[in-house]
Amino acid sequence: MSDPIPAILDRIDDDQPRALDRLMELLRIPSISTDPDHADDCDTAADWLVAELTHLGFRATKRDTPGHPMVVAHGGEGDRHVLFYGHYDVQPVDPLSEWNRKPFDPAIESTQRGKVIRARGASDDKGQLMTFLEACRAWKAETGKLPLRITVLFEGEEESGSPSLVPFLCANREELSAEIALICDTGLYDDKVPAIVTSLRGLLAEEVTITGPDRDLHSGMYGGPAMNPARVLTRILGGLHDDAGRVQVPGFYDGVGEPPAEVAEGWTALGFSTEAFLGEVGLSHAAGERGRSGLEMLWSRPTAEINGLTSGYTGRGFKTVLPSTARAKVSFRLVGGQDPDRLRAAFRDWVIAQMPPDCHVTFDGHGGAAASAMSTGDPVFSLVRRALSEEWGREAAFVGGAGSIPIAGYFQQELGMESVLTGFARDDDQIHSPNEKYDVESFRKGIRSWARILGALA
Amino acid sequence: MSDPIPAILDRIDDDQPRALDRLMELLRIPSISTDPDHADDCDTAADWLVAELTHLGFRATKRDTPGHPMVVAHGGEGDRHVLFYGHYDVQPVDPLSEWNRKPFDPAIESTQRGKVIRARGASDDKGQLMTFLEACRAWKAETGKLPLRITVLFEGEEESGSPSLVPFLCANREELSAEIALICDTGLYDDKVPAIVTSLRGLLAEEVTITGPDRDLHSGMYGGPAMNPARVLTRILGGLHDDAGRVQVPGFYDGVGEPPAEVAEGWTALGFSTEAFLGEVGLSHAAGERGRSGLEMLWSRPTAEINGLTSGYTGRGFKTVLPSTARAKVSFRLVGGQDPDRLRAAFRDWVIAQMPPDCHVTFDGHGGAAASAMSTGDPVFSLVRRALSEEWGREAAFVGGAGSIPIAGYFQQELGMESVLTGFARDDDQIHSPNEKYDVESFRKGIRSWARILGALA
Repeated sequence: MSDPIPAILDRIDDDQPRALDRLMELLRIPSISTDPDHADDCDTAADWLVAELTHLGFRATKRDTPGHPMVVAHGGEGDRHVLFYGHYDVQPVDPLSEWNRKPFDPAIESTQRGKVIRARGASDDKGQLMTFLEACRAWKAETGKLPLRITVLFEGEEESGSPSLVPFLCANREELSAEIALICDTGLYDDKVPAIVTSLRGLLAEEVTITGPDRDLHSGMYGGPAMNPARVLTRILGGLHDDAGRVQVPGFYDGVGEPPAEVAEGWTALGFSTEAFLGEVGLSHAAGERGRSGLEMLWSRPTAEINGLTSGYTGRGFKTVLPSTARAKVSFRLVGGQDPDRLRAAFRDWVIAQMPPDCHVTFDGHGGAAASAMSTGDPVFSLVRRALSEEWGREAAFVGGAGSIPIAGYFQQELGMESVLTGFARDDDQIHSPNEKYDVESFRKGIRSWARILGALA
Repeated sequence: MSDPIPAILDRIDDDQPRALDRLMELLRIPSISTDPDHADDCDTAADWLVAELTHLGFRATKRDTPGHPMVVAHGGEGDRHVLFYGHYDVQPVDPLSEWNRKPFDPAIESTQRGKVIRARGASDDKGQLMTFLEACRAWKAETGKLPLRITVLFEGEEESGSPSLVPFLCANREELSAEIALICDTGLYDDKVPAIVTSLRGLLAEEVTITGPDRDLHSGMYGGPAMNPARVLTRILGGLHDDAGRVQVPGFYDGVGEPPAEVAEGWTALGFSTEAFLGEVGLSHAAGERGRSGLEMLWSRPTAEINGLTSGYTGRGFKTVLPSTARAKVSFRLVGGQDPDRLRAAFRDWVIAQMPPDCHVTFDGHGGAAASAMSTGDPVFSLVRRALSEEWGREAAFVGGAGSIPIAGYFQQELGMESVLTGFARDDDQIHSPNEKYDVESFRKGIRSWARILGALA
C-alpha cells in the first residue's frame, strides 16, 4: 500500500481548528493535583480523557489509586507495542495577580513570535499529550486503524511527586509492559531543532518547619532573650551553598559523575548560549557551581533550591512580631547515582544538627526520584530521531533534561522498559509560571511529528 | 475639704460593670492602623473617643493628619498641667485561625488566673487608655470637676510607626505642651508590683525585597544557572548575627552604653527570672547576646529580628518554582545613642554590598525612633511612684522598657517635656498575638491607680 503519511499530514493541518477546540476543552478543567480542593477537577480531567480515547477506538478505563486516578487505554494491533505516557494534572496558578487572563480560561493569542495557546497546562502537559492523541486520530481517520499496538497511560499526580505511580506500575506490570515507552513532556532544543532527552535529573523535595515560642510574640516585649525561628531558618538555608555554589549537605555529591565524553562533545556542538538562555528571563550570570558551563549546570550537575519561604507577618505594612514558626520548601535536582532516600536523610540530619535550644524542626517529605539515563543504542531511538528530523528539517538533538521526569526511571526499574522522551515545548512557555503558553506551531508540528513517529515504528 | 480619694475609689468599684461596657464598645471597632482597609475604622474609633471626652466635660476635637486622625481634648483647671497620651489603633490580627474568638467581638472570660477581657486591643492600648478616662469620670462624678488641668492626646498610628505624630506636635507645640506627660502603654513589673518605665528601646523597621529573574521559573528548567532570590535573602539574613548573637551590620553598636550603676543594681534587686519569663511562652534558653542577662537583653541591649519572610510557593503541597522575588520584614530595637537614620543607611549598605549579579534590592522604610531615658529626678516621678505604691501595697519599681514607645522621646525632643510611663498590662496579655487579653483586675486597679495619681498631682 502507498505511504499514507502525506495524506495524514494534510489531514492534520486541515483539522487544526477542531484539534485546538478539543485541547481548549481539556485546558478548562483546573486539574491542580497538589491542591486537595481540586481533587474533583483531576477526576473530571481523567473522565474527559477516557471519553476521548474511547472515541478514538481505544479500550479506555479510569483506574482508581489512593490519589488521583490513572487513565489506561489499549488500541491497535501488530508486533511492535509502545506505551505512551503523559500527565493531565497541572501546577498551581499563584500568583494569580501576575496572569494576564484567567489560567483556566484558555485562548489563542497572537504574539510577535506567532500564535500561542494561553492557559495553565497548555504546555505542561495537556497540550503535549494531545499532540499524540491527535496523531492517533489522523491515522485512524485516514487508514481506519492505528498503525501499531499502543497502550496509553495518563497520570494525574506528576506535578505532586507521583505517589501512586510505582505501586500502580507494579500492580499492572503485565498490562503496562511494552517494547518501549514514548513520553511527551519535554521541549524542543530551540524553536527549530527537535530533541530527544537521553538523561534526566532526579528530584527530592522537603518541607522544613521550625518552631520556637508557643505563640507569636511582641518583638519589643520578648526581643532579645526569645529565640526567633525565622532567624534559625535563614541561618541554616543561608549555609546551604558555599561561595563556589556547592551544596554543603554532607555526602551530597556521592554518585555524581561526569557525562560520557561523546555526550559532552555533543553538548558542546550545540553551541548553547547561557547568556541568551538567561537573558530571556531577565538574568545574565550563570549562578550555579563555579567552573561549570550553563549546560552542565542544567543537565549534569545537581542543585539545591529554596522554592518557598514563609514566616511571621507577610501582609501590608509592618508588624513587630517574633514569629513562632518559620517554614521553607526546599528541593534538590539529582544526577547520576545520587540516592534520593539517602540524601533526604542526610539533609534532615544536617538541619537537625543545626537546631539551637528551644527550636523544634519537623519535615514533610515530598516526591523523591533518582536521575535516569537512556540506552540510546536501542534502534527505536534512531527511528524516532529520523522521523523527527524529517518533520523539522533539522537533525534531532540528543540532549540532557534539566527537569525531572521520574517516570522514565520508574519504567526502567519497574517494567525494564526504555523511554524515548521527546516533546515540543519551548523555553519561553513559562510552565509552572504565570501566563503559561504553548505555541500553536508546537501543537501542529507536534501532532505531525507523532504521526511520522508512529509510521516509522509501525 | 476632706480627702475625696476613698469615695472616688468606692465609686470606681461600684461603676465597674458600666466601665467594662464602655471599654467593650471601643474594642468592637477594628482600628488596625497598618491596614488601609481599616482607615474608616480608625476614624470611627477617634469619633467614639471625642464623644466620650466631651461627655466627661473635656473640650474634645478630632484633628486630621495625613494619616489617621489625632484626638485632642482639654479639661480641668489649676497650676499643674499634665498631658495624657494613649493610642486607639491596634495591631493586625492574623493568624486569625489561632484566635479562640473573633478579635473584635470582645468578651469577659473566666480563667484560672481570674477574669480577663479578651479582644485585640484589650491591653494594647484601648484597655489602658480607658483606665485614665474612667479615673477622670470618677473624679468628676464625686467632686464635680477634674482635680487639675489635663490635656489628652490620643493617636491612631502608634502600631504603624507614628508617621504623623512629630509633625503634629510641631504644629501644635503650644497647645500640647504641659508640665509633664503621662503615658499609659506599659505593664506591671509582675502581677503584684506596679512599674514606672524610665528607659525605652527605640525601633527601626525595614522591608527588604530582593528580585532576580523577571518571573517565577521552573526549578527543573532553570535550576542551576538561574539566580534564586530566596537563596540570596537567606544568605544575607543568616549572617545578620554572629555565633555570639551580635548584630553584624557595621557600626551597629555605636552609641550603645551600659546602664548607670544604680539602675543596674535596681534591676538586679528585682530578682528577675529569665527562665520563668521565657517559660511562659514555651522557651527556656536566653537567645540574645552571649554573656548578657535576660533583663539586659530586654532593657539595655539592641536587637535585630526577622518579623516576616515570604518567597515563592507557600501554599499546600509542593511547587518546584524558582521564585522571582524574596521579601523580609526586619526590625531593630535600639538603645542608648543609636541613631535610627544612620543605622537604616548602614543596614541598607550592608545588604546592597552583598547583592550578587542579577539581583536587585529595594527597601521600604518603616518607623524609626531612637531610644529614650527619663529624668527620674523630676519630683513628679516620686509623687506618681507613691500613688502607685499606695494602690498596690508594693513599692513601685523603676524599670527599663523592652518595647518601643517613641512618643516619650518625641515629647522630650519636640516639646521639652518629660514622660511618666506607667501601665497595668501583664506579660501574658499576648499583645500583638492571637487571643490578646487584659485582666479585669488590671483594668479596675488601673483606674484606681490613675485616680490616686491625679489626686497626688493636684
